[in-house]
Amino acid sequence: MADYMSMDNLRFILHEMLDVSQLCELERHKDYDKESFDILLDSAKTYADKVMFPTLKEMDEAPAHYKDGKVIVHPVVGQVMRDAGENGSIGSTFDYEVGGMQLPNTIAVGVAHISSAANNSIGGYAGLTSGAAHLIINFGSQDLIETYTPKMMKGEWAGTMCLTEPQAGSSLSDITTSATPVGDGSYRIKGQKIFISGGDHEHCDNFIHLVLARIDGAPAGTKGISLFVVPKKRISGDDLESNDVLTAGDFQKMGQKGYCTTHLVFGEQDDCKGWLVGPQNKGLKCMFQMMNGARIDVGVTAASVATAAYYASLQYAKERPQGRRILANGVKNAEAEQTTLINHPDIRRMLLLQRAITEGALALLLQASLYHDLSEAGPEEDREKYHDLLELLTPMAKTYPSEMGRTSINAGLQIFGGYGFCTEFPLEQYYRDIRIMSLYEGTTGIQSLDLLGRKVTMKHGAAMKHLTLEVIETIKAASNYDDLKVYAGQLKNASKDLEATLMHLLKFAMEGDHERYIADATVFMDYMSTIAIGWQWLKMATVAKTALVTGNMKRSEGFYENKIHTMRFFFKYELPKIYSLAETLKHPESLTILEENKTVLA
Amino acid sequence: MADYMSMDNLRFILHEMLDVSQLCELERHKDYDKESFDILLDSAKTYADKVMFPTLKEMDEAPAHYKDGKVIVHPVVGQVMRDAGENGSIGSTFDYEVGGMQLPNTIAVGVAHISSAANNSIGGYAGLTSGAAHLIINFGSQDLIETYTPKMMKGEWAGTMCLTEPQAGSSLSDITTSATPVGDGSYRIKGQKIFISGGDHEHCDNFIHLVLARIDGAPAGTKGISLFVVPKKRISGDDLESNDVLTAGDFQKMGQKGYCTTHLVFGEQDDCKGWLVGPQNKGLKCMFQMMNGARIDVGVTAASVATAAYYASLQYAKERPQGRRILANGVKNAEAEQTTLINHPDIRRMLLLQRAITEGALALLLQASLYHDLSEAGPEEDREKYHDLLELLTPMAKTYPSEMGRTSINAGLQIFGGYGFCTEFPLEQYYRDIRIMSLYEGTTGIQSLDLLGRKVTMKHGAAMKHLTLEVIETIKAASNYDDLKVYAGQLKNASKDLEATLMHLLKFAMEGDHERYIADATVFMDYMSTIAIGWQWLKMATVAKTALVTGNMKRSEGFYENKIHTMRFFFKYELPKIYSLAETLKHPESLTILEENKTVLA
Repeated sequence: MADYMSMDNLRFILHEMLDVSQLCELERHKDYDKESFDILLDSAKTYADKVMFPTLKEMDEAPAHYKDGKVIVHPVVGQVMRDAGENGSIGSTFDYEVGGMQLPNTIAVGVAHISSAANNSIGGYAGLTSGAAHLIINFGSQDLIETYTPKMMKGEWAGTMCLTEPQAGSSLSDITTSATPVGDGSYRIKGQKIFISGGDHEHCDNFIHLVLARIDGAPAGTKGISLFVVPKKRISGDDLESNDVLTAGDFQKMGQKGYCTTHLVFGEQDDCKGWLVGPQNKGLKCMFQMMNGARIDVGVTAASVATAAYYASLQYAKERPQGRRILANGVKNAEAEQTTLINHPDIRRMLLLQRAITEGALALLLQASLYHDLSEAGPEEDREKYHDLLELLTPMAKTYPSEMGRTSINAGLQIFGGYGFCTEFPLEQYYRDIRIMSLYEGTTGIQSLDLLGRKVTMKHGAAMKHLTLEVIETIKAASNYDDLKVYAGQLKNASKDLEATLMHLLKFAMEGDHERYIADATVFMDYMSTIAIGWQWLKMATVAKTALVTGNMKRSEGFYENKIHTMRFFFKYELPKIYSLAETLKHPESLTILEENKTVLA
Repeated sequence: MADYMSMDNLRFILHEMLDVSQLCELERHKDYDKESFDILLDSAKTYADKVMFPTLKEMDEAPAHYKDGKVIVHPVVGQVMRDAGENGSIGSTFDYEVGGMQLPNTIAVGVAHISSAANNSIGGYAGLTSGAAHLIINFGSQDLIETYTPKMMKGEWAGTMCLTEPQAGSSLSDITTSATPVGDGSYRIKGQKIFISGGDHEHCDNFIHLVLARIDGAPAGTKGISLFVVPKKRISGDDLESNDVLTAGDFQKMGQKGYCTTHLVFGEQDDCKGWLVGPQNKGLKCMFQMMNGARIDVGVTAASVATAAYYASLQYAKERPQGRRILANGVKNAEAEQTTLINHPDIRRMLLLQRAITEGALALLLQASLYHDLSEAGPEEDREKYHDLLELLTPMAKTYPSEMGRTSINAGLQIFGGYGFCTEFPLEQYYRDIRIMSLYEGTTGIQSLDLLGRKVTMKHGAAMKHLTLEVIETIKAASNYDDLKVYAGQLKNASKDLEATLMHLLKFAMEGDHERYIADATVFMDYMSTIAIGWQWLKMATVAKTALVTGNMKRSEGFYENKIHTMRFFFKYELPKIYSLAETLKHPESLTILEENKTVLA
């Protein structure tokens, strides 16, 4: 079996860098210890090896599709849903009292990394089911919880999130799906939703859609949106009956072809019932719980696909003979045997780039997940801080892996030469698959508006202050080692630059020019997330250095040396970008804001 | 019909910026004038509209494939080959005496831009036929010229270039295809070639392969490679008979699916004859003529696919309602009607990015082609200078459109939101199609070694000196306008930075550490080509400014204002990157060169 991720690296981040076992001292997670975490991760790997990785290519070659009113997906989807139900992973992070396992999110994200690296078309089916069930548990009535979540957690019924509509796209304020009260506590739902992942197939008995809709007479915009449970089939005694949810089609996509993307029509015959979840007109706020989780999931999937691509290209680079090294004098010895690809500097650069991106991204995602756990189960007085940190990191943890994961896979594909473009090797699939990640669950543009327009300024910059303190702590720890001091200094400069750049931008907001403040949000996302990944790399390198210095090594010496080397790579090849991006961000000219009387792009 | 390129922009570059009509004063091109160029371009557009663009999607949906020993391609390939033969375009740039039209390369590249933007899977068939015929004309015997080139120029026979072998990939020194003299002046050819574009199909009567092979006893490495004409069918009286060239398969690819990519086996039954082209063991040198042309062709194709993607995303952005502008106070008015995508700053940023990349790339390609024409037909005393300039620009003109064209299309796809990932819109095909460009005809790594390792140092830096003078001339011209002075100053700084960075790197070479000198060649490529595009943009903006100031406008005022605006965009969002890249290039640490005793990437 080909490597598609590294358990060693995952354990290093979880145990050595984040000390995830600290969570076992908290009441919520007290039944766990390091060993039980490891057993869980190992069994996830065994399962991914056996069931998920082998179907990766099959699912690409026989895409999910719509036929005779049905959506056809690979049968492994059914198997995985049932198995996930049986082993409890759908509700693994839920409370015991609702049938969950109170597993830390950090470990659940580790498991998701393993399975998404093995096969990125499968995880979403159970992931959305988990997210939908969680939403019902948190905001739904006891009746809704009892009616729907047990079967969802068993994998018999699937869950989805239904936001996008044909005419609205990213603009949720424009959704028009309507909800009319019918008197019995339910609502009549009418409208169309598109791009509904996992929205229908033959392997689950029912689909529980979490639908954003507008109750008749609700105010315009996002303030008039409510959230509903709308099952595909409603319960009628012991049976299920149609709830007038029609599947109108399945979008055919460039990648992630095994994951169906449906078009659903609710209430075409005026017989579609929905039940309100959470308060009226507060639907978006409730949905954001699920969306935030889904954003982390997308980030994990992106980082994991890129990780699989990295290991495929690493293996190829080690095996493929190709040319000769350029000798110091610039001459190549044509008589000598060919060397392998991996011995060429440009190939090593592309391998290290992939490693720097994928391991940095995974570290940031697990860091965010640890904050998530601490925000829910940590000491009461720290919870808000960790919540703010999670809020601040989420758009970056979604976007960096999605955007830079693409760059990473591009480098992996390039290592294969012409074969990288051919379907007989896996890189072209990974290249196609990852492209959706910067569109899912809020495009990069949306995430960037969230980061700059909301997160960095929220609570008068509280989250930014917390993050700065975390970064300073990392800088201090690194500074204990002479040969890390230079990198600690570089991160310090980057952190100061971030502050200065942000101050520069905030002036526009303070002067009342919000459009200008936000115009280059996507550039700011690139800028700030590069610094965040630099922070994670310095943290990893410091932990590795400590292991080398103390001799307390859980893995090979080479593993730790590689970590430090890759950090140096990131600081040479990636971190410097921030100064160019800062120049763009602070540039005096405004070139992308519409000026009514100009003909630019007209 | 959707726009897929801009005739206005093409004419602006050809006539206003490059004054291509200057070539009509040269003996070689004296039968042409501006009007005849325009007629030719217009008819190419009409043909592309009618024949090429309509088959773009069909060719993607029904890929070229191998079946029962045959390669099946879309029938439009046959039509285009015949039409190209009839209208003379296969040999359009050849001398009159061999049946050509002595058309300037610059105009031929303009025509290629139109057709590749319409359909990037077709142009290669005729393009390689033209390149192969040209190679035979330049280096082959009179007999070979008379036997093969007339039918190739008529499009009845197709041509290919056969370099890559399964075991050798990018390392041409390792090719093993053998050539054994048989006494009658021909050679017995034996070996396998892969990734042979346009290598076989049912719509041409014969395929004339230009094959690199090793004559028995030839020295190892590239110094032992010779070039042969190896037809699929050899001439036997008035008939064609098998020449033992077997098509073993057609590679299935992620994109450019309409363009077949064959696996050929020569001489499996020891009955494959080839005829030497050019001197023994000088095959690579001869082949480089064709490869240099092919590199420009790849650059043009990349720039053109990205151009088509730009216009598709521009149209979508103009038509698609989506959300509302953020008002100065940061509030959105949910009651207001939706605005169109194009009015959002981030969408405008992505549109301008595409425009900056695609128009900059096209300008560089046409600039290189003008140097090509001047090197062949210009005043005798300047020819070497123009040849050196062409040599220097070629790797950048191939690589910048291939690499940044991908970035450009990525931005275009993003503008479509989720639809960008779906097969019902054209962006996902363009996204897949362009990915091959940085692999074709020497990967980006190979082009970068060529640029830094060969071109910038050749003839003691003569080409670099010529280029610097050209850049200085552009800076001077721009400095005539007050509001262009700041950009002229920025390009001047960039040009100085290039000199300093190069001096820094050259120290390694002078100290004998050639591997270190060349290790970051790909980063240098990114760095130097960004400056080259900055040069082209300042040149375009200066011409536009002159038109606006003098009132001597061939197009709308908006067109010229857009040019200046896009130049400003490039100088704000793209050019600053060079300083980060310079920091990486001058960074003291060496991290990608193999150190034998280290475990990095082991």
